[in-house]
Amino acid sequence: MNRIGIIGFGALGSFYANMIGNEHRVEGVTVGAICDIDAEKREKARSLFPQVPVYSSADEILDSGNCDFVSVAVPHYVHPEITMKAIRKGMPVIVEKPAGIIPSTVREMNACSQEHPDVPFGIMWNQRTNRVFRKLHDITASGEMGALRQVVWISRQFRTQRYYDSGTWRATWGGEGGGVIVNQAPHQIDLLQWIFGMPKRVYATTNFGYHRSIAVENDVCAEFAYENGATGVFITCTDDVLGEDRLTAVYDKGRIRVFDSRRMEIEKLCDDEETIGTDYSDEKINTLKRNGKLFETIVFEKEDEPFANSEHAKVFRAFSEHMAKPEKPLVAEGTDGIYEVLLASAIQLSGWLKQPVDLPVDDELFLSELNKRILAEGKYSTR
Amino acid sequence: MNRIGIIGFGALGSFYANMIGNEHRVEGVTVGAICDIDAEKREKARSLFPQVPVYSSADEILDSGNCDFVSVAVPHYVHPEITMKAIRKGMPVIVEKPAGIIPSTVREMNACSQEHPDVPFGIMWNQRTNRVFRKLHDITASGEMGALRQVVWISRQFRTQRYYDSGTWRATWGGEGGGVIVNQAPHQIDLLQWIFGMPKRVYATTNFGYHRSIAVENDVCAEFAYENGATGVFITCTDDVLGEDRLTAVYDKGRIRVFDSRRMEIEKLCDDEETIGTDYSDEKINTLKRNGKLFETIVFEKEDEPFANSEHAKVFRAFSEHMAKPEKPLVAEGTDGIYEVLLASAIQLSGWLKQPVDLPVDDELFLSELNKRILAEGKYSTR
Repeated sequence: MNRIGIIGFGALGSFYANMIGNEHRVEGVTVGAICDIDAEKREKARSLFPQVPVYSSADEILDSGNCDFVSVAVPHYVHPEITMKAIRKGMPVIVEKPAGIIPSTVREMNACSQEHPDVPFGIMWNQRTNRVFRKLHDITASGEMGALRQVVWISRQFRTQRYYDSGTWRATWGGEGGGVIVNQAPHQIDLLQWIFGMPKRVYATTNFGYHRSIAVENDVCAEFAYENGATGVFITCTDDVLGEDRLTAVYDKGRIRVFDSRRMEIEKLCDDEETIGTDYSDEKINTLKRNGKLFETIVFEKEDEPFANSEHAKVFRAFSEHMAKPEKPLVAEGTDGIYEVLLASAIQLSGWLKQPVDLPVDDELFLSELNKRILAEGKYSTR
Repeated sequence: MNRIGIIGFGALGSFYANMIGNEHRVEGVTVGAICDIDAEKREKARSLFPQVPVYSSADEILDSGNCDFVSVAVPHYVHPEITMKAIRKGMPVIVEKPAGIIPSTVREMNACSQEHPDVPFGIMWNQRTNRVFRKLHDITASGEMGALRQVVWISRQFRTQRYYDSGTWRATWGGEGGGVIVNQAPHQIDLLQWIFGMPKRVYATTNFGYHRSIAVENDVCAEFAYENGATGVFITCTDDVLGEDRLTAVYDKGRIRVFDSRRMEIEKLCDDEETIGTDYSDEKINTLKRNGKLFETIVFEKEDEPFANSEHAKVFRAFSEHMAKPEKPLVAEGTDGIYEVLLASAIQLSGWLKQPVDLPVDDELFLSELNKRILAEGKYSTR
């Protein structure tokens, strides 16, 4: 049995403790220890898990001898700092997403991990376990659809004002580090970069406190330019009660659409589009269309989850198995978190400056613009 | 009977002559005269319409006494010049779309029209007769859906290399003035501005000769920012044999989607989204969802066209009726063409400069950038 140490007993940490400690959803893993800097949360942990030792600092839990690996479920800003503490003590660690807010701190975390290559380091990209996205990743990487020409992901979400009012740190520059880009959308941003690679340029039109009383961004329309000429659009918001989740990727040899992150429709052309557009006669194209032979359609669906949030359990299980057998892969290497942070910070910086931004972003410029917003907010110290 | 004079006997002019002169599709209108500066086209006109006088210049047809109004179906660049000739001679005129390529020439045309307010002046925005778009226009203007929050129109089209090779002027900077933006997409660009108003800022990522051997743009991903904070995306290309035509407009009070410019689905919320997100309890929202009362869906479809391209016939008929009874409205006032030209030129300029562009565009900057491309192309004189 591997004993997990849960660092941070907020919404996520307490959910993990329940999933692993009470529901026994992660084979081979048990709850070894819990830690929170907040006395009230420690009290809650003790009452819910009376048999589990509870600590008040990361150092204490890391030195306790009561855990074999840790989950870092603290505020985004602090992810790199706490993760580095674990790595330096040789403690295997899974960090929450996003890997951090400030790219330079995530680079530092990655450098630390590279100095300790034997310490397993993962990141909670649970949506990478969705077999629809795995398949999309594999098809794209295989080249069987040819090169990407365009990807459009519209992910319009809904959060109530009550949700925003439920924690003082929520949707703040200084506490959370942003809005929809760092809280709701990191999965989509990571999947975009994981599947389609990093764009070279980003331009975003961003609205702050759009139809909600918050300081941070909650309505973002971002455009990407990729090195090969492909373009991308990523739309996300939290003010759409109807909601929409629709991904369309167009390639040289066809199109793949994913509806509601569940149902994937692959339309594979009989030939490369450029060849059809250049060498095929109009008659040949029309005949292919008429006979339904221009493309074939393959449908691929996400399996039903055996229990709510089973994706998180898969990430923990893979991590635990990797600890026993290092040849077993993680769902996502911890060092991989930097790409999502770079793409997210480019979207943020472009929205702040109202100008296109080339990747990678200028770390100092990003930090100084972020600090301007923390200062204007007046609730937290600058970073 | 109103006799139409057709100026320009290319693909469009000969189509109009056939629709009106042979098929009698426009009640109250007959073909009075035809004109083309090209001898071969005049020969073709004479053989197809032996009873119709054929002229070799705009001045001749305008002075002939054989027509009561004219259709200007000449290359885009020349639209304003020929249209002004007609207006100055007191000849009612319908100009083709786009109204022109260079905004300053279209402004000049509009000034000329304003000096001759009694000369009817229309523009061939035939898709404004589509009752789906009329309804979308009216709903948006009425305010019953509240303010616009976002509009996304994906209009991915297909043109073969053969199509591009079919005329030396096709897809050239100097001859046609651009690619998909000035040839295939003007209808969508006009409908966007007609229905949702003009954005204040445009950013476009543009590919030139994308998977086709042409000099001009045929793959454009444009992002709009509107004055009220709403955002927009307009995607168009000519290298997609699968094709896509999908418009989504999100408003304060719901969403309207138009599929294939034919089928409109209106999803009208029971209340303003912000009110739902702020004042409704989670329980109330869930109950509304469960009972199917969160929104109502109304479907509205385009009528079948009685004959191919009947929309053009409607524009001519409305124009002819307006000549007899000035209180009868045109489908589109000719002076209205400037907005599409301004939006199109902002998209072009942004794609050329790889920078966001504020509207209205700087006329001189636009022209100098266009001339750079005409010069590099080396086929036509600069403008």
